[in-house]
Amino acid sequence: MKNQFTRRTFIASAAASLVPASAAYGRPKEGSAISSLSGESSQAATSIKKDWKDAGVIDLTNSPYAKLKTVPVRAVTIQDGFWSQRRKTNIASSIPSMHRELLAHGRMDNFLRLEGKSPEPQKGPVFADSDIYKWTEAAAFTLQTNNEPQLRSTVEKTIREVVAIQEPSGYLNTYYVGDRKSERMLYPTQERGHELYNIGHMLQGAIAYYRATGDPTLLDAGMRFVDDFLIPNYGPGKNQKGIVSGHPEIEMALIELYRTTGKRQYVDLAGYILHGDDRIPLTQQQITYMFCGIPFTSRTRLEGHAVRAMYACCGATDYYLETGDPAYWKTLNILWNDLNSHQLYVTGGVGARESGEAFGDPYELPNARAYGESCAAIGNMMWNSRMLAASGEARFTDVMERALYNGINSGMSLDGTTYCYRNPLAFDPSGDSSDRHSPEGKIRNHWYDTTCCPPNLERTFASLPGYFYSTSEDGVYVHFYDNSEMNWHLHDGTPLKIEQKTNYPWNGDIAMTVSPETPSEFTVYVRIPGWSVKNEVKVNGTPLSGAKRGEYLAIRRRWSANDKVELSFDMTTHLLKANPAVNEDRGRVAFQRGPVVFCMEHLDQPNQGDHKNLTGYRVDIAGNTASQFEPHLLDGVMVLDHPGYVSSSQVSSLYYSAKMVEKPQESPTSVRLIPYYAWANRNPSAMQVWIPYERS
Amino acid sequence: MKNQFTRRTFIASAAASLVPASAAYGRPKEGSAISSLSGESSQAATSIKKDWKDAGVIDLTNSPYAKLKTVPVRAVTIQDGFWSQRRKTNIASSIPSMHRELLAHGRMDNFLRLEGKSPEPQKGPVFADSDIYKWTEAAAFTLQTNNEPQLRSTVEKTIREVVAIQEPSGYLNTYYVGDRKSERMLYPTQERGHELYNIGHMLQGAIAYYRATGDPTLLDAGMRFVDDFLIPNYGPGKNQKGIVSGHPEIEMALIELYRTTGKRQYVDLAGYILHGDDRIPLTQQQITYMFCGIPFTSRTRLEGHAVRAMYACCGATDYYLETGDPAYWKTLNILWNDLNSHQLYVTGGVGARESGEAFGDPYELPNARAYGESCAAIGNMMWNSRMLAASGEARFTDVMERALYNGINSGMSLDGTTYCYRNPLAFDPSGDSSDRHSPEGKIRNHWYDTTCCPPNLERTFASLPGYFYSTSEDGVYVHFYDNSEMNWHLHDGTPLKIEQKTNYPWNGDIAMTVSPETPSEFTVYVRIPGWSVKNEVKVNGTPLSGAKRGEYLAIRRRWSANDKVELSFDMTTHLLKANPAVNEDRGRVAFQRGPVVFCMEHLDQPNQGDHKNLTGYRVDIAGNTASQFEPHLLDGVMVLDHPGYVSSSQVSSLYYSAKMVEKPQESPTSVRLIPYYAWANRNPSAMQVWIPYERS
Repeated sequence: MKNQFTRRTFIASAAASLVPASAAYGRPKEGSAISSLSGESSQAATSIKKDWKDAGVIDLTNSPYAKLKTVPVRAVTIQDGFWSQRRKTNIASSIPSMHRELLAHGRMDNFLRLEGKSPEPQKGPVFADSDIYKWTEAAAFTLQTNNEPQLRSTVEKTIREVVAIQEPSGYLNTYYVGDRKSERMLYPTQERGHELYNIGHMLQGAIAYYRATGDPTLLDAGMRFVDDFLIPNYGPGKNQKGIVSGHPEIEMALIELYRTTGKRQYVDLAGYILHGDDRIPLTQQQITYMFCGIPFTSRTRLEGHAVRAMYACCGATDYYLETGDPAYWKTLNILWNDLNSHQLYVTGGVGARESGEAFGDPYELPNARAYGESCAAIGNMMWNSRMLAASGEARFTDVMERALYNGINSGMSLDGTTYCYRNPLAFDPSGDSSDRHSPEGKIRNHWYDTTCCPPNLERTFASLPGYFYSTSEDGVYVHFYDNSEMNWHLHDGTPLKIEQKTNYPWNGDIAMTVSPETPSEFTVYVRIPGWSVKNEVKVNGTPLSGAKRGEYLAIRRRWSANDKVELSFDMTTHLLKANPAVNEDRGRVAFQRGPVVFCMEHLDQPNQGDHKNLTGYRVDIAGNTASQFEPHLLDGVMVLDHPGYVSSSQVSSLYYSAKMVEKPQESPTSVRLIPYYAWANRNPSAMQVWIPYERS
Repeated sequence: MKNQFTRRTFIASAAASLVPASAAYGRPKEGSAISSLSGESSQAATSIKKDWKDAGVIDLTNSPYAKLKTVPVRAVTIQDGFWSQRRKTNIASSIPSMHRELLAHGRMDNFLRLEGKSPEPQKGPVFADSDIYKWTEAAAFTLQTNNEPQLRSTVEKTIREVVAIQEPSGYLNTYYVGDRKSERMLYPTQERGHELYNIGHMLQGAIAYYRATGDPTLLDAGMRFVDDFLIPNYGPGKNQKGIVSGHPEIEMALIELYRTTGKRQYVDLAGYILHGDDRIPLTQQQITYMFCGIPFTSRTRLEGHAVRAMYACCGATDYYLETGDPAYWKTLNILWNDLNSHQLYVTGGVGARESGEAFGDPYELPNARAYGESCAAIGNMMWNSRMLAASGEARFTDVMERALYNGINSGMSLDGTTYCYRNPLAFDPSGDSSDRHSPEGKIRNHWYDTTCCPPNLERTFASLPGYFYSTSEDGVYVHFYDNSEMNWHLHDGTPLKIEQKTNYPWNGDIAMTVSPETPSEFTVYVRIPGWSVKNEVKVNGTPLSGAKRGEYLAIRRRWSANDKVELSFDMTTHLLKANPAVNEDRGRVAFQRGPVVFCMEHLDQPNQGDHKNLTGYRVDIAGNTASQFEPHLLDGVMVLDHPGYVSSSQVSSLYYSAKMVEKPQESPTSVRLIPYYAWANRNPSAMQVWIPYERS
């Protein structure tokens, strides 16, 4: 009875507050500051210097330690080319079908029930609310580039139901209610309950929607949670309770909230969480798993739950971008070197182990057993985008590109309706490939009860235009290549249009047009990918020297409308070896052409013999790879053919004396490879990225 | 208060019953039947046909489907040679020091507390009682071969404290008492509570002690649990409750109890458990993990928790040995083929994954991450010893030998005081090698809170003589080789002595003397190991033909005292390859000489360069291995030296283009190997069993 009374009270209160809150926040005039609902932040109001439309995926406009500033998602139009089909499918199929799945699995009923509008019991895990918020963020990024009235209406309705259940205290969560109310934010709940994780995603969704529409309704609710419930009760201060980020996420959300509102206390709270709160006792195992609870700056390696670690690194980099704390930058670089030296899959995926969804030991990078959660690859790209902003260094963009084209892009089926939770680098459908999230052993599924990855993939593809460019004090950075048009401006306000014409990543030629509204001297930094050995850059037909792979080439000159920049990258297919310490890859190579990593699927092999899997195949490492575009295969992909061998007999013994048993007979064959991202889009078939080259 | 009353009551009752129980059971006259304490089994009494001293590790004397019959442990004396030091250390150090550890960690206090003799709270996991029982079994096997009055006194005292807490109902457990009493044998408790597992180990310890001393005190308590508590309440029958073996163990114990008492209902109950009880609802995950709950005969692969699976296979083979059910034999062979084709480490260890301590997918045999729990290797040997008894086929003995000399023998340090829980096939002490049981990352530890492995190793070494020989209708089987003397008899009662003189396993020559008390025609089956390619067998100097590796050579003749059998096995070192489907072993070889598998330890390498681990080494697969006995190294071991290379530079990149980066410089070196079982007995050092042979 007590719960019922409480619920009615806060529902009434929330409904009442909804209208004036929105009205107070309002839709600011262009160029005006937004005013904070909390009524206590006159500093905040004055520190907001730009329109809600001008913010990027994250908004680094006023971040003092961001060398690069984000460009709004809406400022870049991706035209027909590599990413267009994926992005169209995202809007036409993925986002609507995921919304239906969320409804079918009770994710909205969880909210409606608390309003008395649904009889359904609570459904889904403790982090079920975040599914709605991440989907909202995906929809919001879509609305930043596309006019989709029906989608906007659905989001508005969703937001209305969310804010309706906010309690007068500011608390908002559909799980820790009723009998579970007493568990709210207790220490064990903070470890596993995902209350702050949910709110972190809510804030990100709210900010993206605000930047799409100017509507602050959800943002207001998020601020009320932080201002009225979180900050007064948790964090530094002797009258407040301990705080720990059981699944990091809130850190980056708080800093983005600061960037949106100018309220510095959000940065301070994020820093406090990143430092760890001594009042909460944690075991070493918890500190490892959660990637939280001790000073972030004391960490020396990536470990524990991969998504937690990546999100914590995102939050810590955001904190650095606002504070410039050199200890953070030092630690972030140590962790990044650990990533790139020991922990990164060639697909850009991270997280070797299913157990704990965790990083493994250095060089522990199993293929069939790879976890490589889609969310972790996304977290990796998000972290590297922040490192790039802090430094302007192309080594970070190389990692982003590796993740984006491969380990992220693999996460969604080509038709946009099924998703990978795991992204292994080898697969045998006849084997036991079950994992906790896919008990039937299917690698792509419409739904997971832990459905973090699908909306995460959707928000990533929806926000993609925001990752293509940055601006800097002296000009503009070009990070990614695809047919596209940017309409934005330099820091001095000069409007600037950049057009790209290309068949990237299948072809390495990009024709760019750089068009400032008025002739102006500035620098165009063009990224020379780390995989491109020979490079040509021309401006208005004149070759430039100095292009180095893995760096940005700075082209400083006086630019006028329609100046041409021609880039030509080296699309030679590379047979990559892994460090000998990676046990599973010894004696094997992976194929990479441009940013795209390839794989073998069994069903493509011209000579299958009696092989039901890929065990009998190897490639001739000295052979030459042929590439060919297949427009009707897998929505149009480049296909590789490489000389190799297939054994005509199989070893059946588990162990045998090397000298006593003849090597299996082999016959020459051509090994066919498709892009890794496109695997598992046809009938179930064995797959491998790392292919043996030595005769076994 | 209620609990206190109950406890006092049953303590008084148990104490009262202790004396008459022992007296009733008594110490039977030689050749007489033992009488059952329960007073209800006149059949049992009459079906016991032999002396308690005549039973082996398991007693197959009357098992109708056992082609081979066990020989008592006490009938074989192992003399100075390979196993003698290990067995002396077991008695002098391991068993006493483990007893001290058990006391120090409250394992006896758990019993004493219930008698009111200790103020300590319950300590250790739900299976803590089994630690005491397995230690008791180790001590009991020791007492079967050695006169150790102090040890016997300690065991007697231990047994007295155990039986003193048995409740009038027959129930006996130190964990499910007091507040936890209401959880006894509930379904979730049966899944995780290890009540039947504890009693299984109690029965095995009780039987071993009875076979050592004739003292049935503990055996009586075990029978009372089964007769008074278990059978009347659980199992088949509509008035009884469902039963599931959450950790298989009770099955083989029940059948050994039948073999000891002749009470057939124990076989029936074991069969019922092996079949699975429909009344207990189980998920597929539980059925996989526990290796119980569905008909054993419906299983087609090894999966789930490795020790559980091995113990279930032991129980199922015991069931077959008593019933001859062909469906069991068929399934056992399917599972054995799965083991030998997909799941067996070259060390004889099993269980690839730390997560769930489980079997992996077929061919999933990681090295550094290998779990290879000592208990699982022991379970593997126990299972194969039963398969051998059922069939007389040497393929089972080959697996026993592989496990015994390698993956079991590695489990105990040479000084007998520290133990491996995991037995990985590669190790880097500078890496993160922590596991749940060894948080400090040490591979050998004095104590584990889950201390199943140490006493399991101790009981295995203590019972070792019982595995050397079997008898059959037509003669005697020789399974293992070491300096030893068997004094036993043929089935017709003819006393038979067999002596072995050998330096096995370092040398392949064995001189045997076969001495029947009176000249007699029978067959001596000598095992030709699977690894021995060329073999010579002579009888009284005359060569015999027909010896085939991996089989028993049947030598049928009229034997007289001091007939000589000379065996000469091929001790060529083999460089073993693994099936190409074993990803981690591709491009690598393992060294095996005789039954002993070797490994590299970094500290032994003559040319270490600046390598801190073993990443830079490879061997020349065409090279010849030199072997040399080092009497002062690691208690005396054969050492191998093989030509190879060590790289003088290291690749630092995680990935690199095969054509663009030069191969690291290499210099020739000799690679030194020691027996795998002796690794980690000096300073921490990197180790690997599988050594690359291809240049990376």
